[in-house]
Amino acid sequence: MIKVGIVGGTGYTGVELLRLLLRHASAELKVITSRGEAGRRLDDLFPNLRGRTDLAFTDPSDADLESCDVVFFATPHNVAMQSVPSLVQAGVRVVDLSADYRLRNVSVWEAWYGEPHSSPELCQTAVYGLPERNRDAIISAQLVACPGCYPTSVQLGFMPLLEQGIIDPSQLIASSASGASGAGRQAKIPGLLTEAGESFKAYGVSGHRHLPEIEQGLSDMTIESPILTFVPHLVPMSRGIHSTLFAKLRDVDVDLQALFEARYANEPFVDVLPAGQFPETRSVRGANTCQISITVPQGRDTVVVTTVIDNLVKGAAGQAVQAMNLMFGLPETAGLDVIALMP
Amino acid sequence: MIKVGIVGGTGYTGVELLRLLLRHASAELKVITSRGEAGRRLDDLFPNLRGRTDLAFTDPSDADLESCDVVFFATPHNVAMQSVPSLVQAGVRVVDLSADYRLRNVSVWEAWYGEPHSSPELCQTAVYGLPERNRDAIISAQLVACPGCYPTSVQLGFMPLLEQGIIDPSQLIASSASGASGAGRQAKIPGLLTEAGESFKAYGVSGHRHLPEIEQGLSDMTIESPILTFVPHLVPMSRGIHSTLFAKLRDVDVDLQALFEARYANEPFVDVLPAGQFPETRSVRGANTCQISITVPQGRDTVVVTTVIDNLVKGAAGQAVQAMNLMFGLPETAGLDVIALMP
Amino acid sequence: MIKVGIVGGTGYTGVELLRLLLRHASAELKVITSRGEAGRRLDDLFPNLRGRTDLAFTDPSDADLESCDVVFFATPHNVAMQSVPSLVQAGVRVVDLSADYRLRNVSVWEAWYGEPHSSPELCQTAVYGLPERNRDAIISAQLVACPGCYPTSVQLGFMPLLEQGIIDPSQLIASSASGASGAGRQAKIPGLLTEAGESFKAYGVSGHRHLPEIEQGLSDMTIESPILTFVPHLVPMSRGIHSTLFAKLRDVDVDLQALFEARYANEPFVDVLPAGQFPETRSVRGANTCQISITVPQGRDTVVVTTVIDNLVKGAAGQAVQAMNLMFGLPETAGLDVIALMP
Amino acid sequence: MIKVGIVGGTGYTGVELLRLLLRHASAELKVITSRGEAGRRLDDLFPNLRGRTDLAFTDPSDADLESCDVVFFATPHNVAMQSVPSLVQAGVRVVDLSADYRLRNVSVWEAWYGEPHSSPELCQTAVYGLPERNRDAIISAQLVACPGCYPTSVQLGFMPLLEQGIIDPSQLIASSASGASGAGRQAKIPGLLTEAGESFKAYGVSGHRHLPEIEQGLSDMTIESPILTFVPHLVPMSRGIHSTLFAKLRDVDVDLQALFEARYANEPFVDVLPAGQFPETRSVRGANTCQISITVPQGRDTVVVTTVIDNLVKGAAGQAVQAMNLMFGLPETAGLDVIALMP
Repeated sequence: MIKVGIVGGTGYTGVELLRLLLRHASAELKVITSRGEAGRRLDDLFPNLRGRTDLAFTDPSDADLESCDVVFFATPHNVAMQSVPSLVQAGVRVVDLSADYRLRNVSVWEAWYGEPHSSPELCQTAVYGLPERNRDAIISAQLVACPGCYPTSVQLGFMPLLEQGIIDPSQLIASSASGASGAGRQAKIPGLLTEAGESFKAYGVSGHRHLPEIEQGLSDMTIESPILTFVPHLVPMSRGIHSTLFAKLRDVDVDLQALFEARYANEPFVDVLPAGQFPETRSVRGANTCQISITVPQGRDTVVVTTVIDNLVKGAAGQAVQAMNLMFGLPETAGLDVIALMP
Repeated sequence: MIKVGIVGGTGYTGVELLRLLLRHASAELKVITSRGEAGRRLDDLFPNLRGRTDLAFTDPSDADLESCDVVFFATPHNVAMQSVPSLVQAGVRVVDLSADYRLRNVSVWEAWYGEPHSSPELCQTAVYGLPERNRDAIISAQLVACPGCYPTSVQLGFMPLLEQGIIDPSQLIASSASGASGAGRQAKIPGLLTEAGESFKAYGVSGHRHLPEIEQGLSDMTIESPILTFVPHLVPMSRGIHSTLFAKLRDVDVDLQALFEARYANEPFVDVLPAGQFPETRSVRGANTCQISITVPQGRDTVVVTTVIDNLVKGAAGQAVQAMNLMFGLPETAGLDVIALMP
Repeated sequence: MIKVGIVGGTGYTGVELLRLLLRHASAELKVITSRGEAGRRLDDLFPNLRGRTDLAFTDPSDADLESCDVVFFATPHNVAMQSVPSLVQAGVRVVDLSADYRLRNVSVWEAWYGEPHSSPELCQTAVYGLPERNRDAIISAQLVACPGCYPTSVQLGFMPLLEQGIIDPSQLIASSASGASGAGRQAKIPGLLTEAGESFKAYGVSGHRHLPEIEQGLSDMTIESPILTFVPHLVPMSRGIHSTLFAKLRDVDVDLQALFEARYANEPFVDVLPAGQFPETRSVRGANTCQISITVPQGRDTVVVTTVIDNLVKGAAGQAVQAMNLMFGLPETAGLDVIALMP
Repeated sequence: MIKVGIVGGTGYTGVELLRLLLRHASAELKVITSRGEAGRRLDDLFPNLRGRTDLAFTDPSDADLESCDVVFFATPHNVAMQSVPSLVQAGVRVVDLSADYRLRNVSVWEAWYGEPHSSPELCQTAVYGLPERNRDAIISAQLVACPGCYPTSVQLGFMPLLEQGIIDPSQLIASSASGASGAGRQAKIPGLLTEAGESFKAYGVSGHRHLPEIEQGLSDMTIESPILTFVPHLVPMSRGIHSTLFAKLRDVDVDLQALFEARYANEPFVDVLPAGQFPETRSVRGANTCQISITVPQGRDTVVVTTVIDNLVKGAAGQAVQAMNLMFGLPETAGLDVIALMP
């Protein structure tokens, strides 16, 4: 059994990690920390866990994380980087779901997050945890930086096209939409049902922190320099991300459906839909799957790719468990065989 | 492996049975019928099942149901009763999720459903499939009539009180509320998001078909004749039933919390919350659990019990699988260990 | 033109008052206060008001409320009572939408609100602003205490029955349900879309502050002492309250439909639906109307009344404007002719 | 008083026309037709209209439309074109909210709608009813073809840019999202709350009927030939359209904020938000306003315009009333001063 620790388990990524790990046949949750909820039973905060665990939250200062085989960080940015260096030093493997180690270029990180990075050296050695791109590196990684939710949905949609040089990387557009859980379990007015319900809006149009992460990921797929216009939107629902991607085709004769199917043929969690069928977020609610469709409207020269994931699963906790499975030699799908809840 | 057939799998109860049975370690789905969708792959109708099954719907006339060990009926009323007698004759065990065999009194059935019952003799032998009340009978039953969704939520809430004679059975009140999936996957205007969304209403106030079923169930718990006023409501959400039950106490000195905890101590799917905590439907979304709270407001003489279930799970497909587990000597929780999806 | 001031206009009751008053032909908004948003334009906080007003919030200490003809308080409890006495002294008429002056019995108020009342003498002279009950007193009132949202929906439903002595007042039950705006525009986790969405729950079962207010109102309608069991619920929608009321009939031969129609025949904002039709909250969304239905299920001895209002209109701002109209001799419907938005 | 007739008033556009016209000071509704609901009172079908009208639906064959001053068609396509020619012949002015007369090129219409057009000659004389573009023509028009909902939101966003030649018209992208009322009040499974709720999806990616309408409208704004990639999405809400528009700038030095503000300075229903503020659909719910923001992310060469409208108001019934006001010499805002309902 893999001994697991979780730092910061009171948010939505945390409870989702718990949902997956408490039923994972090869993992045993040893400790989960929270400063604010120390001493409180998990199932008191999250009644959906009643009967599944007797654990309580531990104060970070009392948590013996170094005796874990793997520690997940489900924290806001700027928390993991305080503790990860010593854990890595101690030989513990780390899966960081926060943004701390996603950008290799530390100065870019510091510009977008507005503060200095306290362990810049690890930014170079951390492995970006997108299995469909970096599987081998994840297997041997000591520190995995899990991709953000939007970045996962955008990269999986552009990847086959960029890898094959079929689109012009200088004019990429991503119009993405997320459920409200993307903003976390935070007491803020814009997240109220009365504010976010029955409404739709764009936000972060002039610049969202996921932009540099996506551009870094896309740049790994091509020798050119991708330029992306990225506009996220807020959808009045809890879970799910939908990305609608637009790119200009260099070659309009390629069979894009076949290209995507071939690229993802062996991927357990990427599902290319039959031509003419379009994904909806609910089809992957609670599951670790990314569903994708490809269309060239009117047979013109612009390709439209639409992708859906559950932002808390393939966009966060599920992808983190997928990374853990790879790191510990387990079947990649272990603990991730949940069927999406519909309706 | 238990060979399973499903009749009528294109509704929400059907897809929920599929979600549970496709991952059930001891069950193998052999055939699923649909008149309207015969020949269509399951995962074409329900994209959340992609990668889980290659089955297609079979036309009822082509389906070899008699070679199954158990057949589930997930049909509107008046369908199961046409086929169940011959299946029973052939020795197949049947779990009927419809209303056809829930009422022992055939004339009451005929009055509420407005048509003659075609196999009244089976109404006497069918076992009402509420495990918390009829576990032993279910184990040996050949035909189980699964309780309705509202009836499950109301009976589990009143049961400990009626069994102990603590409340006046002549003045019971149930104010229940259901998500829109309770109306099924039917093309009707009142179920549109634009009609049912952002609104709340009572319906069936003058008489809902679940009333005689509930009163029959309650009458089994006491030698008196229970009289219930039952008002269902429609909630703008997909899944979940919440019942708020009111009854007049005969004895205000009983420790009701202890009574409920004792009554349900060994029940794997009934969870009595700590005093002062109230259930919400989302805590059981996708799970087979019923969560219950008990309160005596202001210390007066009226007890308020609130219960929640997922109408498609403990209120339908989950309870049906629970019955199957009992009928075939499996652990009662087999295939039902799904943790509720929150948020 | 009536010169209007509003204290505390940054919540949902505040923006709703603004929606109604900015288009009221006989009212002119002179000042609106907010400590936190002083100096900010109203339409910056509430973009739905763009083009309708150039006003900005004023700091309470800078606001000349005494020059207003009427001041509305749209504040949390314990705010109005600090300022109302001096305004009343100065001859300003006051419409208080908060709970400060709703209870005549000051010790009951102090018990439920957990703090001393600073102007208990006004609790006796304040007029409870339910026009359908207290129209004449409102007309001449200097201080009107607007009813709470739940209390409005419950009192209007029980009133004809209690006034005529048709039901047993010792066993009243109200199962009410409110949209999330009832909790106000406050940064709290339980109000998040991710918490309150796709879920339904009871709350305040053991005691809600609206209980003593309702019982006081009901006791004015009968010489007996009404006892109410009141359970509020949270619905995943923004606006609307639905109350389902249960009472035991003393006389089962009364034509209740006719009784209600007669009682409310001249009420511009109470609409008794035809027998057999049930109200839904969306039919009054944005309107000042209360719709009501009456049923005696199965012809037994329990009557079920269902009522709907928009909690922010007839349950708050609309009823407040209705009071103002009465106080200043305007047509009672002035500025309140908005048709509900459907869908 | 303008004598008004409505053909086909049982859908969401119909009830919205009723909401606006029943309170319009200069319009008097004389007749409203429906084949299916003939004889039924309007307020029986739409309880939000109770107390506002005593009218009932008239069978089309009994309706004296020719005595009306103006007739609105709120019908599916292929209905208006059967009756409009004779009404026009009779001198009645017509505002058609359907798609029948939106395209001047009849063969394009026939290709997209898959049937012959029965009055092609009127396609040339019909005036496209976008007041911000065609005000003068609308004033004198006998037949106005009201723009579709998506087309309104897209054209108002691109118009200032195309008119000034600032963007490359050959690479336009519109990623739009609509609430479920856009699909009409039709009994179809995909519109159920259980299907469309808690989910987000693209649809019509390979070709939506609004594409040729938008491209026709855009081509009127420039001497070049605009090419648009248009992807609509379904949002789990009732009302509202949000369009996110992308275009490549030819000149990155233009002050786009100033350009938009100048272009719409005199438009009563187009509201350019201050720089840095982004519109949300709820801010215009129930109102006839289009709110717009303009951004150039990262100061690169792609402009992002976001627009919101209420699809049933500025996208349908409100814009139709706006056209009527213009046609009959009324103030353009008559009857359209409703403030958006928030929350």
